[in-house]
Amino acid sequence: MEKHILMSEKSKAGLPAHYNFPYNATASADIAESINALRGSGHGAKLAVLILTADELSRLEASGEHRPSDSVYFRIIITGAGIHESLSESPLLAKVAHVTSSPFSAAELSFHLKKAFSSMDLEVKLAAERNAYQNTLLDMKQDQEDLINIGRALSIEKDPDHLFRLILMLSKKITGADAGSIYIVEVLPDGEKQLRFKYSHTFSKELPYEEFVMPLNRNSIAGYVAVTGTILNIPDVYMLSKSDPVAFNSSFDHEHNYRSKSMIVIPMRNHLDDIIGVIQLINSKEDDTGNSRMTGNEAFEIVLSTPQDFERKVVPFASRYESLMEAVAGQAAIAIENNRM
Amino acid sequence: MEKHILMSEKSKAGLPAHYNFPYNATASADIAESINALRGSGHGAKLAVLILTADELSRLEASGEHRPSDSVYFRIIITGAGIHESLSESPLLAKVAHVTSSPFSAAELSFHLKKAFSSMDLEVKLAAERNAYQNTLLDMKQDQEDLINIGRALSIEKDPDHLFRLILMLSKKITGADAGSIYIVEVLPDGEKQLRFKYSHTFSKELPYEEFVMPLNRNSIAGYVAVTGTILNIPDVYMLSKSDPVAFNSSFDHEHNYRSKSMIVIPMRNHLDDIIGVIQLINSKEDDTGNSRMTGNEAFEIVLSTPQDFERKVVPFASRYESLMEAVAGQAAIAIENNRM
Repeated sequence: MEKHILMSEKSKAGLPAHYNFPYNATASADIAESINALRGSGHGAKLAVLILTADELSRLEASGEHRPSDSVYFRIIITGAGIHESLSESPLLAKVAHVTSSPFSAAELSFHLKKAFSSMDLEVKLAAERNAYQNTLLDMKQDQEDLINIGRALSIEKDPDHLFRLILMLSKKITGADAGSIYIVEVLPDGEKQLRFKYSHTFSKELPYEEFVMPLNRNSIAGYVAVTGTILNIPDVYMLSKSDPVAFNSSFDHEHNYRSKSMIVIPMRNHLDDIIGVIQLINSKEDDTGNSRMTGNEAFEIVLSTPQDFERKVVPFASRYESLMEAVAGQAAIAIENNRM
Repeated sequence: MEKHILMSEKSKAGLPAHYNFPYNATASADIAESINALRGSGHGAKLAVLILTADELSRLEASGEHRPSDSVYFRIIITGAGIHESLSESPLLAKVAHVTSSPFSAAELSFHLKKAFSSMDLEVKLAAERNAYQNTLLDMKQDQEDLINIGRALSIEKDPDHLFRLILMLSKKITGADAGSIYIVEVLPDGEKQLRFKYSHTFSKELPYEEFVMPLNRNSIAGYVAVTGTILNIPDVYMLSKSDPVAFNSSFDHEHNYRSKSMIVIPMRNHLDDIIGVIQLINSKEDDTGNSRMTGNEAFEIVLSTPQDFERKVVPFASRYESLMEAVAGQAAIAIENNRM
């Protein structure tokens, strides 16, 4: 995090001459203006130690530029003044790191700068924890709303083909996935089971698909999940190694000029915990405008066309989508089974 | 929040004689022990300013008693020493509010104590925000899990009578309610609508109920919700006044020696947004052991028997249950409708 020292011209009288400031230090006649400039500059939060006189502190309070802001954390060092009544009533008292009427030695100034930044580090850590919880909370609220809506939508769809489309569309939407497929476990008359590739859709490209069946075993990624019940969350399928339990077949990608990268594969379990199918999602998308609060719902409609798009806009599926999709897959399983009856 | 000043016997030499400390102040030979005692005393978080010498600070660091703890916030004032190298490397540097080698005047000590407590107040506020988010997050995780399980449970129940029981049981469980009833909107052959009191259950008492029908209008609480679609969350039905849109009929309470107090009433809306019924829950329970993190799921089985129980253990329905029950009621509506087809 950027560290700055903003001092007033007047306060310089109390500072050692030729002092080598440990961080970017600026002197100005107007501290309020310096804070404002710092607030507007660059990205992210900054830490600042303000060095000023008691008079200037009063003016800063009046200016309102000291307003709490998550973008500038600050501590105050007051020079050229002792402790007086008005200082102890200052609304900024909690931010005052040091007050002195005697000139600073270099060692003293270094110590007090270090102490001030160290105390801000603690504050930043606490604020970061608070913000992380707040963001997770926003994510969870979105997820909860999504889940409720998905549950409702799935439970009222009576047409089997529409139901598969709906399950895949909603799954792609909440995770921001570009493509996906649904596989269904089928029991043959002789009791053997097979896996049917039932439905597939890719947002960025018109890609053909045909239903086909495959043996229910660990040799395919979907089969592995259907047999073991494990959720797979793979950041890049081309980075799978020989030691991984699954391997990616890239022939479809080559044939259709697509680039599968991140993948999440979730078993659909019914109320008896039987696995009745698998949802496979490919290429979670995010925009690259730096808006990290964009959720799956909004990123869903990003089009991937150039190799750069696949490079820049495809991200691994967030780990929270594992439990979310587990819930969706459970709702989907029940809707499919209700539909069959 | 409790405020304390813990000073060492040795540091007293640097403090003004006969100083009137603004908060509970204790002198001891061993500061680490004083902190430990404070940590173990009473309830809730405490704020402490530690006044000690540089030597004692080193010993405190070594003792480990300075470990971060949400129950004791502290700041440090160091007396009888100037700034020295080891101090600037202290792991507690961020907590050092002031260092001085000269004796304190009363005014100086007052100022530095005030500044130290003021800086802790900021930290406490930030920590409280963080904790509030964390607790809301825990609540939401619980709610999300409940919702998923309820959705699954309702969608697989095929017997209509069992379904009504299940809806009410799960609704009571997640909100910690003692009693509840389900009303269903019925359309008569002539197109008129009526409200059927369909099912009712009280945990704390074996209470009789019989199905009956009532007109669908605003004259009853359930009718009001079925007609307007408004969620009602009433802290105490006996405190309703003439100006409230609904009135409570206490004849059932009198007849059966029950005491209805808090009440939440939620419309059941199907996927077309039609109101097909109403869930009414009575008396949200919490234990009185001071465990405020007990959720509905755990409080569900508290028995209300004495008038004191109703007084102490019944609380208003938390506002978060409004949206949670709205989601449950939506799932219930779809399950009921699927059941009818």
